[in-house]
Amino acid sequence: MPTAYSQLVDHFARLYRIEHALTILQWDQLVMMPPGGTEPRTEAIAELSGMHHEFLIEPRIGELLDEAETAEQETDKKISLREMRREYQWAACIPSDLVRAKSRAGSICEHNWRSQRQNNDWRGFLENFREVVNLSRQEAILRKEVCGSTFATPYDALLDLYCTGDSSELLSEIFAELKKELPPLIEEVVEKQAAVALFDEAIYPIEPQKALNRELAAALGFDFTSGRMDESSHPFSTGTRGDHRITTRFREDDFLDALKATAHETGHASYESGLPAAWEGLPAGQACNLSIHESQSLLFEKQLFVSKPFINYFMPIIHRHLSTARDITADQLWRSCTRVQPDLIRIEADELCYPLHIVIRYEIESALINGELEPDALPEAWNQKMHSYLGMSTEGNYKDGCLQDIHWTDGTFGYFPAYTLGAMNGAQIFAAFCRAHGDWQDQFVKGEVQPLRDWLKDKIWSRGSLLESQELLISATGETTNPAHFLNHVRDRYLNERY
Amino acid sequence: MPTAYSQLVDHFARLYRIEHALTILQWDQLVMMPPGGTEPRTEAIAELSGMHHEFLIEPRIGELLDEAETAEQETDKKISLREMRREYQWAACIPSDLVRAKSRAGSICEHNWRSQRQNNDWRGFLENFREVVNLSRQEAILRKEVCGSTFATPYDALLDLYCTGDSSELLSEIFAELKKELPPLIEEVVEKQAAVALFDEAIYPIEPQKALNRELAAALGFDFTSGRMDESSHPFSTGTRGDHRITTRFREDDFLDALKATAHETGHASYESGLPAAWEGLPAGQACNLSIHESQSLLFEKQLFVSKPFINYFMPIIHRHLSTARDITADQLWRSCTRVQPDLIRIEADELCYPLHIVIRYEIESALINGELEPDALPEAWNQKMHSYLGMSTEGNYKDGCLQDIHWTDGTFGYFPAYTLGAMNGAQIFAAFCRAHGDWQDQFVKGEVQPLRDWLKDKIWSRGSLLESQELLISATGETTNPAHFLNHVRDRYLNERY
Repeated sequence: MPTAYSQLVDHFARLYRIEHALTILQWDQLVMMPPGGTEPRTEAIAELSGMHHEFLIEPRIGELLDEAETAEQETDKKISLREMRREYQWAACIPSDLVRAKSRAGSICEHNWRSQRQNNDWRGFLENFREVVNLSRQEAILRKEVCGSTFATPYDALLDLYCTGDSSELLSEIFAELKKELPPLIEEVVEKQAAVALFDEAIYPIEPQKALNRELAAALGFDFTSGRMDESSHPFSTGTRGDHRITTRFREDDFLDALKATAHETGHASYESGLPAAWEGLPAGQACNLSIHESQSLLFEKQLFVSKPFINYFMPIIHRHLSTARDITADQLWRSCTRVQPDLIRIEADELCYPLHIVIRYEIESALINGELEPDALPEAWNQKMHSYLGMSTEGNYKDGCLQDIHWTDGTFGYFPAYTLGAMNGAQIFAAFCRAHGDWQDQFVKGEVQPLRDWLKDKIWSRGSLLESQELLISATGETTNPAHFLNHVRDRYLNERY
Repeated sequence: MPTAYSQLVDHFARLYRIEHALTILQWDQLVMMPPGGTEPRTEAIAELSGMHHEFLIEPRIGELLDEAETAEQETDKKISLREMRREYQWAACIPSDLVRAKSRAGSICEHNWRSQRQNNDWRGFLENFREVVNLSRQEAILRKEVCGSTFATPYDALLDLYCTGDSSELLSEIFAELKKELPPLIEEVVEKQAAVALFDEAIYPIEPQKALNRELAAALGFDFTSGRMDESSHPFSTGTRGDHRITTRFREDDFLDALKATAHETGHASYESGLPAAWEGLPAGQACNLSIHESQSLLFEKQLFVSKPFINYFMPIIHRHLSTARDITADQLWRSCTRVQPDLIRIEADELCYPLHIVIRYEIESALINGELEPDALPEAWNQKMHSYLGMSTEGNYKDGCLQDIHWTDGTFGYFPAYTLGAMNGAQIFAAFCRAHGDWQDQFVKGEVQPLRDWLKDKIWSRGSLLESQELLISATGETTNPAHFLNHVRDRYLNERY
């Protein structure tokens, strides 16, 4: 008779294979599928997701977990069981009625949002959105109850779905610091940059941009024998073991857009490709959480690609592919990459303004879920915070205000903080790498990224979920998330123009 | 309480969604997946196939079928139940031990065949092949038993997996006719063609070939909003509702190779796209069988694309895309498409020699499965038949003889006849279309394929599996498979050079 633990390993390996199928179906839908395939694909994905869910919450899994948790004493197995328990519990604790109701309300709200956003129709959106918030609150309360005293607020229980191990207490501290430090810094940088003109844009044909982006991904360590790169309307990263897939998108009037996306997604894919082979197919072998995942993509984009030494290395390669970019210097390109300009739209935001967009969303979504703010009051709260933190108004402009993002439309609350925690963690992890590799600028200027990759693989990638996010940061950098590293990085970059 | 029939409809719709996932995983593996993904993909496909099989043979399905077969009186539902019963019975009648043993023996034999073929290693192949034949014989006997008196021989029960509704009795009659008529015809045509030189080949770059093949597919009616076209090492067709996918392959020294494959696969995809929407997701709504499927691909390739009028229409389009083909005339292209040249290799064979390659395989595989020939005697039987029907020797040359095809290596016996039944059915169906559309040459020369597509959709595509193959042929053409139409077609084309 196999042990309870080994039965669980088999069960989770089967779940992993269903996830493999879902990953490919979803990738194909975004990258390859012709429009005619939408309806049957939606049905096939729903069918497999349902099978995955039923299979994960089978009652015997709860029994096997109880038995194995008593029987197993080895640290590794205990960790593995902790992660299995988390997956099981998070799936099993929500009644199927609530899952279905939320999925339905979310689909309706998201679907209608697409035209409501275009038409600036807040009233229409609100009608669907109230139910999404209502059901998300129910979900948060249920999740909090299941975990007893683990979570301080219902919102923390949703946050944990994406930023496992990070808390709203930690977030509030970090965000308070950012709210204090960033606004005056932005003002100073904007003024300083006003004197410097950017290069004139030209037309950069798509085909050579494709070749250029493949060369960037390869230069950053992406392995095309275990991955592919395609186009999609929003860049993303996904894949399965030995098959890591990234996408980018091309604009004829801006070649930087694709390059930044390629660097970003290569960071995500590199993390996935470096996960511990010994834990493959098990929850403990998967990426730690989204605030660590985003730290890797942002580190590749902001600390590596946008650094002066790497841009100096890469500029001749850009010149070789894009004839209309041949007069642009490395210094001009770096200035274009680091231009700061407050804007209403999060996805257009620069490195300095981005965290403030996230603070606005964090403060609003936590208040919504914890019952301190009603959906009706959302536009006013948004406008007021946008004014305080970024000095702009969204009064009556819902389209570029609280209706701009897709996340909340289907009840994805607790996700936004990962972007900014990722920026903090990325800067902190990179600072630790720089302490260990004093010559990093000499490496980057020669295009040598392997030392960075080796260090990240050792400290982050190969750790999977064996440590929780804050433990992992302590192990890699000596401390939990500390925004001082990000603030040092942006001062060094934007005021001192050091790299 | 839903009726037994409606429970079956739900169950088969769920199976159909799992098949959708498998279709995309397999397409992706052949067309998109980087080499690193092989092992986990194989595992994921095996997992889903296993789930599909378990789900199909659940004992309650047998009970629901019994109940519905008694309860339902409507013709449509009776037909639908007949097809459900067939799928269930074919899956349930083989014990899982045998399924697993055959799958294992087939994997080993196929895997080793790849190098054994290259090394002309018959002895090595034979060691694995004996077990594949042994297990396939067991499977055939079991399948025959389940169906009582339906099948004359065990081989017929395997044939039925691919050519449902066609029998070895029918095949033997047709093949006797082909063995008599084709060899002297081939001799005559080869002699006649010897006097005519073909155009000199040049280099045809791949990128313009891709655009040309997309234009051919579109000209034949392929809808790119409900499908895609890609490259793979062997052309194939697959897909799901609203999303039909074909592949082709490109050779720089031969642009006809890709065009013929594109026409062929467009025929397969057109059939799938025309299946009856009302029966979607149910066995009765699926394509009739492989000898009908192949009739559609061969009709698109041989009767439509390779016809003089269509080539006259399409030649300027080739000229527009391929500058190195600008001196080739429509007549030269047609002569190249219709060149007859006996060869040892089936997949290189022309329209006249191809059926004889199939006759060799049919006679050998039926004797192997029915226990009239032992695996050891395969090379001798092959050489002797190759000599009789095509006048060539494969003595000691296993590589280009009995080791050339992949089909038997994993126990796919009963599949080969579909190719030649398809050629017979294609010619017969096209002859019926020509009787209804006396002006077909005027249509083709203007590139008008819609009348043909509409006629095929009405007579074949929209019938799904509501009729069995021979009934479908009677309904569309007035008779069962009759090789006279194919023989008329090849005499008209190769002796009279009429179209």
